[in-house]
Amino acid sequence: MKNFTYFNPVKIVFGKGMIAELNELIPEGVKVMLTYGGGSIKRNGVYDQVRRALSGRAVIEFGGVEPNPRYETCMKAAAQAKDEDVGFLLAVGGGSVLDGTKFIAVAARYGTGDPWEIMEGGKPVTAALPLGSVLTLPATGSEMNDFAVISRNSTGEKLAFASPWVYPKFSVLDPETTYSLPERQVENGIIDTFAHVMEQYMCAIGCSPLTERQSEAVLLTLIEEAPKVKERPRDYGVRANLMWCATTGLNGSLGCGVEAQDWATHMIGHELTALYGIDHGRTLAAIMPAVHRHEITRKQKRLAQCARRVWGIHEADEGVCAALAIDKMEAFFRKVGVPTRLSEYGIDAADAGRQVAERLAKRGVLIGEYGDLGEKAVREIVALAK
Amino acid sequence: MKNFTYFNPVKIVFGKGMIAELNELIPEGVKVMLTYGGGSIKRNGVYDQVRRALSGRAVIEFGGVEPNPRYETCMKAAAQAKDEDVGFLLAVGGGSVLDGTKFIAVAARYGTGDPWEIMEGGKPVTAALPLGSVLTLPATGSEMNDFAVISRNSTGEKLAFASPWVYPKFSVLDPETTYSLPERQVENGIIDTFAHVMEQYMCAIGCSPLTERQSEAVLLTLIEEAPKVKERPRDYGVRANLMWCATTGLNGSLGCGVEAQDWATHMIGHELTALYGIDHGRTLAAIMPAVHRHEITRKQKRLAQCARRVWGIHEADEGVCAALAIDKMEAFFRKVGVPTRLSEYGIDAADAGRQVAERLAKRGVLIGEYGDLGEKAVREIVALAK
Repeated sequence: MKNFTYFNPVKIVFGKGMIAELNELIPEGVKVMLTYGGGSIKRNGVYDQVRRALSGRAVIEFGGVEPNPRYETCMKAAAQAKDEDVGFLLAVGGGSVLDGTKFIAVAARYGTGDPWEIMEGGKPVTAALPLGSVLTLPATGSEMNDFAVISRNSTGEKLAFASPWVYPKFSVLDPETTYSLPERQVENGIIDTFAHVMEQYMCAIGCSPLTERQSEAVLLTLIEEAPKVKERPRDYGVRANLMWCATTGLNGSLGCGVEAQDWATHMIGHELTALYGIDHGRTLAAIMPAVHRHEITRKQKRLAQCARRVWGIHEADEGVCAALAIDKMEAFFRKVGVPTRLSEYGIDAADAGRQVAERLAKRGVLIGEYGDLGEKAVREIVALAK
Repeated sequence: MKNFTYFNPVKIVFGKGMIAELNELIPEGVKVMLTYGGGSIKRNGVYDQVRRALSGRAVIEFGGVEPNPRYETCMKAAAQAKDEDVGFLLAVGGGSVLDGTKFIAVAARYGTGDPWEIMEGGKPVTAALPLGSVLTLPATGSEMNDFAVISRNSTGEKLAFASPWVYPKFSVLDPETTYSLPERQVENGIIDTFAHVMEQYMCAIGCSPLTERQSEAVLLTLIEEAPKVKERPRDYGVRANLMWCATTGLNGSLGCGVEAQDWATHMIGHELTALYGIDHGRTLAAIMPAVHRHEITRKQKRLAQCARRVWGIHEADEGVCAALAIDKMEAFFRKVGVPTRLSEYGIDAADAGRQVAERLAKRGVLIGEYGDLGEKAVREIVALAK
């Protein structure tokens, strides 16, 4: 087991009706800025629940945080937060609103200079407004971690940062808020969660037995629950299970003691989103099977373990098990309702492979758990998703 | 899934050599009180590592925190901490030192009156000295939770309290510190961990699918690793796995969304320790199979699930599976090296049952997941452990 530090101070307040706790969760006497996205919270009743919980308190609003939240938008919000002496940020929405709000929190307490310096890796975060969240879309895990990904319109950059300063003080997770999600977003969230767990779990080298089993716990639960949400979208238990899986999938616990992580699928997926505008979750469903097929020899042992423990495959030959595990995963993605081939988007995979490989190579990025997948490997991987 | 709140701000610093991080983990400029137990840390090199990490800092010591830490001892430590203006408590040892230090932390910041008022349930904790730990005995989970159990010599009471004020700021877990543990303590720690997980998992009514699987993850890992530690006591990986299982087993995560918990085994076990001086872990090994056999009808479904997922039993009949699951658990405890029958301690189980039942009845305690096990049931359960 690898040495590790685990720290996650986010208070999770989980269950139906829990939005009513907001007034207790936010410190007294501060002005709250409620941040949100495109306004779905006003249509599905979440906004009303939040305002009711905060009635009598000083609350201002900042709507319009976009999917792939933008630096430019966040800077406007930060300026408003400073001007109006906001003391607490409340993100109400999905991962994008959360990520945007994390950056707003930092930008609102940034001294002189441009907070984008943080994204470029040069400057550390030394202060942030406190923030909390009401999550309405289980997928990214942002509600219980200290990461955020922000895009800058003017430069086309999309960069991530992490800092203990941006752990939400709390996240309220009411599964009922997810009933009204478009089916496509539910599907994407399931794939995103599955991929987060796999990227931490599917490393070739020795890992941490308890952590491996905890990853398998999330995968098994997702596989069991995902088909149910298609049949019974208003089944509270199913929604609750999917929501808790998404949060657990990327709260750091599944990385404890793990020797290496493999975020190749996410790295390639981000480029496909940038190039073709395919939803993040959908890029993962196309690329993850391809990554595993390309790396099947190095990952054979872990894939065979996954076959046995997650997919119930008990062939004698390890190589056969590994191959079947990938087939099963791809079939699962399809069962969730998500295409797994680039041709289904009318994209030529060979051409996409060349473009993605070139983009990553230009930035000097080597990916995979060994950090050794370069231009040729990326080209081959994307081509496999034809 | 039941509504829940999960909050655990303990920073875990895990791995070999991590004691050297102590100086970074403890705030600067405060006087540190190092608390410990009987002095094993001076024999196994842990004390030296700690002092080396803190060289140049103001450190005072308080040794002699006993197993089942006593109020009277803790009050002395608290008085010294106050007198000497201590700003941080560092517990170095196992669960008893940790529990004692949690009470010292509260007592040192308690206003007028006797902090025992907290134990009796009347007074809330409103302040505590900050504390951290270097864990040397994986078992109780105290290093990553906010509970403590304290005994009062003068009254014979043994009471628990919980408060977010006593979460350790950090816990350093170096598996190498456990190499020198007496085999008996290692065995007890394994049983204690197993029991903690089972008490949260083995409830009859519906639970939380992901949490159930995460409990099973700990059980499976314990079952796999425990025999190895007997064969290879200096195997770092095995020690690391057992340590991480113990911490995970009682850090709150395995209670998320769980409808009910069943601490009957622990409740009865505490009485057996009080009556006969049997080690805590050893009482659990005798009583848990008896509790499950007594409650087999109500717990049949979950026991059968445990049979299937944890013990690899695939009989068609659910009742048969349930019974086999209990047999397997008892056999596992014996394989760990721990007796599972009171007769092995020369104790008459029927007589012990009468005494334990009477003691619990006198305090008006009803136990079990439904809170409906009274004098008769307790008598029967203990008698089953003959």
